[in-house]
Amino acid sequence: MIANTPNPPYYAVIFTSIRTETQEDYIETAKRMVELAQLQKGYLGHESAREGLGITVSYWTNLEAIKQWKMESEHQIAQEKGKSLWYAAYKTRICLVERDYGFSSDFDIM
Amino acid sequence: MIANTPNPPYYAVIFTSIRTETQEDYIETAKRMVELAQLQKGYLGHESAREGLGITVSYWTNLEAIKQWKMESEHQIAQEKGKSLWYAAYKTRICLVERDYGFSSDFDIM
Repeated sequence: MIANTPNPPYYAVIFTSIRTETQEDYIETAKRMVELAQLQKGYLGHESAREGLGITVSYWTNLEAIKQWKMESEHQIAQEKGKSLWYAAYKTRICLVERDYGFSSDFDIM
Repeated sequence: MIANTPNPPYYAVIFTSIRTETQEDYIETAKRMVELAQLQKGYLGHESAREGLGITVSYWTNLEAIKQWKMESEHQIAQEKGKSLWYAAYKTRICLVERDYGFSSDFDIM
């Protein structure tokens, strides 16, 4: 469930959101967007949690891959529905991952 | 609840974790670490959610502020307890936020 990303540098898109109460198509679309993202060139993985605030981080090889994903046609429709139906507020941050390190009780190095 | 960060560039630390079942001191320490982080020079805000996977993103003015926070003495003890008690696995990613944009149904621009 922790994304198995390659050695840096790579890119992260942090999408932080607050939902409205509108459920219409939300779960189906969210699922479909994950499927679709995974098919995109340059997709490296993603992590997601919601507890009031929702945080989804997706990982990408470079800025061009992020741009292509933002412009993908089904994703564009979902973005519009996001603004009109599902989200009261959101913030997207495009980040260059410069360094990473980890720990796992099962392995010495992650 | 969405962190009110300044215009980029600034830094993000993405901390993704899977918990053990050990509760000992966890909630108290997590609370204390938030208080302590907010007092650090260069702290800009943070966002957090757990749903199985936990994602905490903290925002900082620069790498030096992140380094100082990593070395803070109470935080060092918490990091050790994290590895020995609270986390089955985690990954920390240090990122330069290059661009951000947002939406709020209450405001035109966020």
